[in-house]
Amino acid sequence: MSLFLVLALLTASFTTHAKYVNASGDPLLLTPGPLSTSLTVKQAMLHDYGSRDTNFSKMNREVLERILSLINGTETHAIVPIQGGGTFAVESMLQTVLPNSGCLLILANGAYGRRMATICERTSKRYIKIECPENEPVNVDMLRSYLAEHPEVTHVAVVYCETTTGLLNPIQEIADVVAKANRKLLIDAISAFGALPLDAAITPFDAVTVTANKGLQCVPGCAFCVIRKTTLEQCEGNAPSLCLDLYDQWKVMEKTGQWRFTPPIQVLAALHTSLQELEQEGGIPVRLQRYITNRDMLIQRMKELGFKLYLSEELQTPIIVTFLTPNHPIFDFNNFYDRLKEKGFIIYPGKLTQVDTFRIGCIGDLYPEQMEKALDAIEEVLTDLKITKEELA
Amino acid sequence: MSLFLVLALLTASFTTHAKYVNASGDPLLLTPGPLSTSLTVKQAMLHDYGSRDTNFSKMNREVLERILSLINGTETHAIVPIQGGGTFAVESMLQTVLPNSGCLLILANGAYGRRMATICERTSKRYIKIECPENEPVNVDMLRSYLAEHPEVTHVAVVYCETTTGLLNPIQEIADVVAKANRKLLIDAISAFGALPLDAAITPFDAVTVTANKGLQCVPGCAFCVIRKTTLEQCEGNAPSLCLDLYDQWKVMEKTGQWRFTPPIQVLAALHTSLQELEQEGGIPVRLQRYITNRDMLIQRMKELGFKLYLSEELQTPIIVTFLTPNHPIFDFNNFYDRLKEKGFIIYPGKLTQVDTFRIGCIGDLYPEQMEKALDAIEEVLTDLKITKEELA
Repeated sequence: MSLFLVLALLTASFTTHAKYVNASGDPLLLTPGPLSTSLTVKQAMLHDYGSRDTNFSKMNREVLERILSLINGTETHAIVPIQGGGTFAVESMLQTVLPNSGCLLILANGAYGRRMATICERTSKRYIKIECPENEPVNVDMLRSYLAEHPEVTHVAVVYCETTTGLLNPIQEIADVVAKANRKLLIDAISAFGALPLDAAITPFDAVTVTANKGLQCVPGCAFCVIRKTTLEQCEGNAPSLCLDLYDQWKVMEKTGQWRFTPPIQVLAALHTSLQELEQEGGIPVRLQRYITNRDMLIQRMKELGFKLYLSEELQTPIIVTFLTPNHPIFDFNNFYDRLKEKGFIIYPGKLTQVDTFRIGCIGDLYPEQMEKALDAIEEVLTDLKITKEELA
Repeated sequence: MSLFLVLALLTASFTTHAKYVNASGDPLLLTPGPLSTSLTVKQAMLHDYGSRDTNFSKMNREVLERILSLINGTETHAIVPIQGGGTFAVESMLQTVLPNSGCLLILANGAYGRRMATICERTSKRYIKIECPENEPVNVDMLRSYLAEHPEVTHVAVVYCETTTGLLNPIQEIADVVAKANRKLLIDAISAFGALPLDAAITPFDAVTVTANKGLQCVPGCAFCVIRKTTLEQCEGNAPSLCLDLYDQWKVMEKTGQWRFTPPIQVLAALHTSLQELEQEGGIPVRLQRYITNRDMLIQRMKELGFKLYLSEELQTPIIVTFLTPNHPIFDFNNFYDRLKEKGFIIYPGKLTQVDTFRIGCIGDLYPEQMEKALDAIEEVLTDLKITKEELA
């Protein structure tokens, strides 16, 4: 065998079988968060800090101020941190903001909307849940009529981007209707924040939840609730929990600058860096544009490969995209997942109960050139499985 | 000036002013946790994992199994993880294990005991709090009589090591009395676990809380509750919270091996490594011996320097030591803290309300040679402040 042939074979082998790894040496996460973070964000965790020391307090304050500023809430709102992930922020928001005399109208079109109802059930908060189809945005006209006919409703809750599907809810229209009806709006922006626009001066809301490990591109372990100050001042004693009481945490932090209970120090150090990297990237609008590019590449190429979207394209956020699992005798999601993982790409299972789907994320430390490699890998897997576009379509 | 003199001055300057840094380039934390962790523990966080991927699930399962095995509870108990720190574990334990028909007797001799009463207050759980002096262990005879006279008490809760002071409670005697009286025992072992002995086959308990960032020498962000299986099976619907319901989390993990809500992935990766390092050190008894050496060095040298202990020596755990703030016109805790920090050592403020104290920790990635350097630094600060031993004593 000539040396040339050996080299050619080695190159071919490398091209086909090389496993993708990112700067951390890991497979790339095409997930809705926890997601791929930059190596520098993770390296910020290589330090110990005293939880009562000024070095940590300063870093913590800068993180809180920057998030509040991203949401343009510095004048009108307060930001309160909470240990854990997004659901901890959502439960603590509902526990803290809803008084016993209140009644929450939950607009649910996915698992995260329904989860708010479960939280109200558990914490004995009064609520009404309106279930909408999982592939339709909240109907704003319906909301307007409902509020007009139901004076007992004091608060309205909605999920900005339903991660169940990646569905976009019309947050501005909802906020305008709720404000006009003189009710308080609580937004679950867990998967949306850092990607989709949210400005407290434009979109009236009383509370919104934010997490580290989605559009802010940090590792998981802490979340936040941004609450209108005049609302928060009235929230003493609402929460049937000590840990999840954001009023208490707010009061303590106002007085001492400290968390009440052990903070996830290294996660905050990582978030401090990831917020700087968001600024370096050009802020949320520039990041959104990258996510949109990722999504558009993903949708176009997946359609070319024969996959079908679950949602209408105009409802599909650039956060996570839901595909119908092909009804093909050879296509098996677990096998597809494992083969993609072998090539260095991790995708996400579906969460819909009625329809068999899977999901691919567009967010995180994920760039169009990597999305292209991921799509090449998907095409290779289909070729390996001998599944043609015509068979999928 | 001769070259010799210049060198001598430079050396002297270096000897006096060199700031201590550990392997991460950080000051050493002499705190009760968050504490100094090894560089390798922090380096385990340099990776991204998919929260629904088998790589993470495997690591997570190994962490859970190892902690349960350290407590010798594999046959009798289940382990349930919770996001957040120790207080999240304690609240979720009380929420989950206490039924509405129950009544908890809280044996409080410090802030963490009293915090359990606050949690019961918030969550509308029935409780009786017995406050004992903060410098005395729980009186076991009193407990025995109280249980005999109060049949309404169904559960007893106590803190193994009260971090408020570093006080050791007689956990074995308490457990024996509670078991003999046929009540259920809930132990807050947050600061004790990984250092002090706890064996489910020797010390009967129904639930115990554990955290990553104390004796297990990991970064903060997740905690655990180890619950007797026969008890946990009866806990459905007890918790007035979704996030803090350990029964729900247990059921989901039994079925799917997964966390219900986003886990603090990198913290678990760090814990996976720190548990391996605990084994490499020789296990909990060997680690305890190191902490004892740290504590004994600390107490002896601090006494020599003129400082006084708050607790009787036999009550002082090798976890954190409380010293009386000297009643000296020049000694100011904040100044003392800042000067020690300049030298690379971070100590901890006091938590007692009646007596002015400060605390120095003995746990973490902290070895006798480092404790010696820290004590040298304390001596230097006193010299710099021109405070003599005679003036302190």
